[in-house]
Amino acid sequence: MSKVQIKPVRPVFPSPAGLVTSVDAEGRPNIITLGEIFNISIREPVIVGIAIAKPRYSHALISASKEFVVNLPTADMVATVDHCGMVSGRNVDKFAAYGLTALPAAEVAAPLIAECPVNIECRVLSVQEIGDHDLFAGEVVAVHVDEDGVTPDGTVSTSSVDPLCFMNWEYWTTGQPLGRIGFTRRE
Amino acid sequence: MSKVQIKPVRPVFPSPAGLVTSVDAEGRPNIITLGEIFNISIREPVIVGIAIAKPRYSHALISASKEFVVNLPTADMVATVDHCGMVSGRNVDKFAAYGLTALPAAEVAAPLIAECPVNIECRVLSVQEIGDHDLFAGEVVAVHVDEDGVTPDGTVSTSSVDPLCFMNWEYWTTGQPLGRIGFTRRE
Repeated sequence: MSKVQIKPVRPVFPSPAGLVTSVDAEGRPNIITLGEIFNISIREPVIVGIAIAKPRYSHALISASKEFVVNLPTADMVATVDHCGMVSGRNVDKFAAYGLTALPAAEVAAPLIAECPVNIECRVLSVQEIGDHDLFAGEVVAVHVDEDGVTPDGTVSTSSVDPLCFMNWEYWTTGQPLGRIGFTRRE
Repeated sequence: MSKVQIKPVRPVFPSPAGLVTSVDAEGRPNIITLGEIFNISIREPVIVGIAIAKPRYSHALISASKEFVVNLPTADMVATVDHCGMVSGRNVDKFAAYGLTALPAAEVAAPLIAECPVNIECRVLSVQEIGDHDLFAGEVVAVHVDEDGVTPDGTVSTSSVDPLCFMNWEYWTTGQPLGRIGFTRRE
């Protein structure tokens, strides 16, 4: 197989498409659609990263409040995810416009989106300018999951939450499980 | 739907599972399996992030060489991806052990993995300790794609490259496309 070189643009996929919530100084919530969200520190502490361009309204809100919530949508919610990425919260109340329900978080002022089966509350630890985006690293202070999306051992039931992914400027469903990490050790 | 709280561990999914190559001072290549790779800066410049724990062999190699290549595997390669994550390159030549083919890169010393349909060459711009991992931000200096995985307009043909994703400690295939970013604007 021959290889050809292409122009580098957003080259890595698939990634989680997420709805990130934050609040302004008066507590009014906003939502930004992100095409990628990052697990950076996995266990001690658990830290999630989000990259936001400086002009975005959520950049200002999260810079001031130092808090955000990552809400993982279902593939069924793809139109809502796309809508939330097409308008600015400076002009539109996205909860009202797209029929989303704000639930109070446990540890931060930003709300959970009830319709998203997984909600990850974060407190900003650092902000680093990296190229055309700023990377907000947020310590995870609480994780909420829909009751029917939790396994008996207290983890997320991946197949129950209908994950949405983002690849190469497209939204995709996820497919089929192929094996748990380490499965080849048991072969 | 009631929400329940769970223990936060690697909470975000799905993410790209990747094979990241690097070289030692003598040019001997190594491979590390990562369960997440990050698009941080999307266009100007294009910057990709990888998070590696300090004890890993690839942490030492990339810290010294300041270069790495992100190779995106197919879902068919899941056993190889898992194998490469189960042993250390300090003890094993993973190219030889798992039948992988090293191709010379265009701009960096680390090789491309021929069997992976997408190969992203990166030069390290910064390293930041974030919790239990260090984040290496790498400027993308070349992207290679298998000839039959490129569209006529010079982007990756997502459905041709059989992407593998990582979710919640499991490997998964991707599913079906749901729409291109902005599709709701045209509804």
